[in-house]
Amino acid sequence: MTRIGIIGYGNLGRGVEAAVKNTPDMELVAVFTRRDPASVKIRTAGVPVVAEADMEAWKDKVDVLVICGGSATDLPVQTPKYAKLFNVIDSFDTHAKIPEHFANVDAAAKAAGKIAMISVGWDPGMFSLNRVYAQSILLDGKDYTFWGKGVSQGHSDAVRRIKGVKNAKQYTCPVESAIEAARSGKNPELTTRQKHTRLCYVVLEDGADAAYVENAIKTMPNYFDEYDTTVNFISEEEFNKNHAGLAHGGFVIRSGKTGFDKENTHVIEYSLKLDSNPEFTASVLIAYARAAARMKAEGVTGCKTVFDVAPSYLSPLSAEELRAHCL
Amino acid sequence: MTRIGIIGYGNLGRGVEAAVKNTPDMELVAVFTRRDPASVKIRTAGVPVVAEADMEAWKDKVDVLVICGGSATDLPVQTPKYAKLFNVIDSFDTHAKIPEHFANVDAAAKAAGKIAMISVGWDPGMFSLNRVYAQSILLDGKDYTFWGKGVSQGHSDAVRRIKGVKNAKQYTCPVESAIEAARSGKNPELTTRQKHTRLCYVVLEDGADAAYVENAIKTMPNYFDEYDTTVNFISEEEFNKNHAGLAHGGFVIRSGKTGFDKENTHVIEYSLKLDSNPEFTASVLIAYARAAARMKAEGVTGCKTVFDVAPSYLSPLSAEELRAHCL
Repeated sequence: MTRIGIIGYGNLGRGVEAAVKNTPDMELVAVFTRRDPASVKIRTAGVPVVAEADMEAWKDKVDVLVICGGSATDLPVQTPKYAKLFNVIDSFDTHAKIPEHFANVDAAAKAAGKIAMISVGWDPGMFSLNRVYAQSILLDGKDYTFWGKGVSQGHSDAVRRIKGVKNAKQYTCPVESAIEAARSGKNPELTTRQKHTRLCYVVLEDGADAAYVENAIKTMPNYFDEYDTTVNFISEEEFNKNHAGLAHGGFVIRSGKTGFDKENTHVIEYSLKLDSNPEFTASVLIAYARAAARMKAEGVTGCKTVFDVAPSYLSPLSAEELRAHCL
Repeated sequence: MTRIGIIGYGNLGRGVEAAVKNTPDMELVAVFTRRDPASVKIRTAGVPVVAEADMEAWKDKVDVLVICGGSATDLPVQTPKYAKLFNVIDSFDTHAKIPEHFANVDAAAKAAGKIAMISVGWDPGMFSLNRVYAQSILLDGKDYTFWGKGVSQGHSDAVRRIKGVKNAKQYTCPVESAIEAARSGKNPELTTRQKHTRLCYVVLEDGADAAYVENAIKTMPNYFDEYDTTVNFISEEEFNKNHAGLAHGGFVIRSGKTGFDKENTHVIEYSLKLDSNPEFTASVLIAYARAAARMKAEGVTGCKTVFDVAPSYLSPLSAEELRAHCL
């Protein structure tokens, strides 16, 4: 049994708890929190909730610590910090800051003789993997990544910061004709506007100016100005009824050419359709936690990403079983 | 530069030659053949064609030997034989015999201090990988593999063996409604007949009995009797004009459930649409030849499959570049 600890009990932490419950070779041993432990009610009977300040006492009782904080401010601090005490895994998703995060976590994990895995999930994660596999096979080609339909937390937050907005959800929607163009194998150039649209559901404060809010959304630099955006104003009741979901998904498509004179075209496509973004991310984390425990047992230390992990490490099946049943 | 040798110059060998030509970090150093070398005209200028009997002299001049024989009789002999002299890679695709082939190749490669990779291509190969990734993430779920539309060599051969048949091509066709059912996330049970149909184009010998041939195809045990099969009789001219292609493809779909009470459903789909089955297989082989050379340089020996290879080994990019640009 691989002993799992969770730090951070939000949507992702709850997803990891559920994934461990449904994974026969894993057990949850503790949930760590910076809140008052007495205020955190978890679903798994008999598992303690422990204050973050008391984590060090658990360093020999946890095989892999799954760090479920946010990428903006939590993970850059927590992952290097806890890599000194535990084998750790996170889902750090600020793409531009991955090299810096990697360097910090690698130094901490190597010094402590621990293994760490960062940026594990679906993007970064499974989408990244599929980009590397497809690029390595079709050297001469072009990649397309489409996201959605799903909620973008960052864009929803940005809308909520506008004066007069009581609540908001922003859905990123891939444009079907752009997906078809990517699948055609003709390697079209697609602009940002052609690939995705943005769809907002907004609950206004009493007396707020709808026209002002709509304009503020549609013209917001970086977040919305390069997209075709639709803004729907709805009641709080409708918002709570229809927009609580965490569904997401997307597509990674690469087309490329082979042949002595590059005469043949191939299209590789990977897609996800997810009812729950955090639960799927948690399931990927748990598979890589299995890999981390195994690689550590073989003496591997330092920071790793999905690119460094052979697929066999992820599966509960033995190498013989995989060859006999999956190859 | 990784120095590549090819043994076997059929469709796959020619595909490997083309892939090496278009791969900056690889060079083709020799094509080995059991035919009279003078009778084999290859496309790459300046590369020798060498008799199979003279291969041993090349053992220090080739980094990876790509073995392009057939799975029925060539590879079970060639791969263990040449793993004693070279690092080797093959596309052995008789799924049921993989454990036996693995054991033979592993023993030979280990004894010689070489690395070998078997069953590299798309199925087995990329489809196998995607089955393992998806199964490892969604432990509670169901897999579906669909092939086509594409030519099945084995089924085409079986039709050609029927008395009265001059030439034949058999296309395996996935049933669109079955793919949609697999994608629905409802984990339907699909019979063999529901998943694929078989489509035959047959050129008859002069005076052959069409009704006899059609019945012989449709009732052939294992090959056709469990499928809905359509038989079209066509002229030799039409056959040569329209049925020379090597296009293929397929879909690997897994749907599964997550959540504390398994309340959420996810669908993972990987698909390929290939203009040329042998050229795509060759491109996968070349990516894994890169991995084989790198792993051998790190001291790895013995037989490996796609399950044992971390994705980073496949890419011409460095680990830093991959993290910065693909993660």
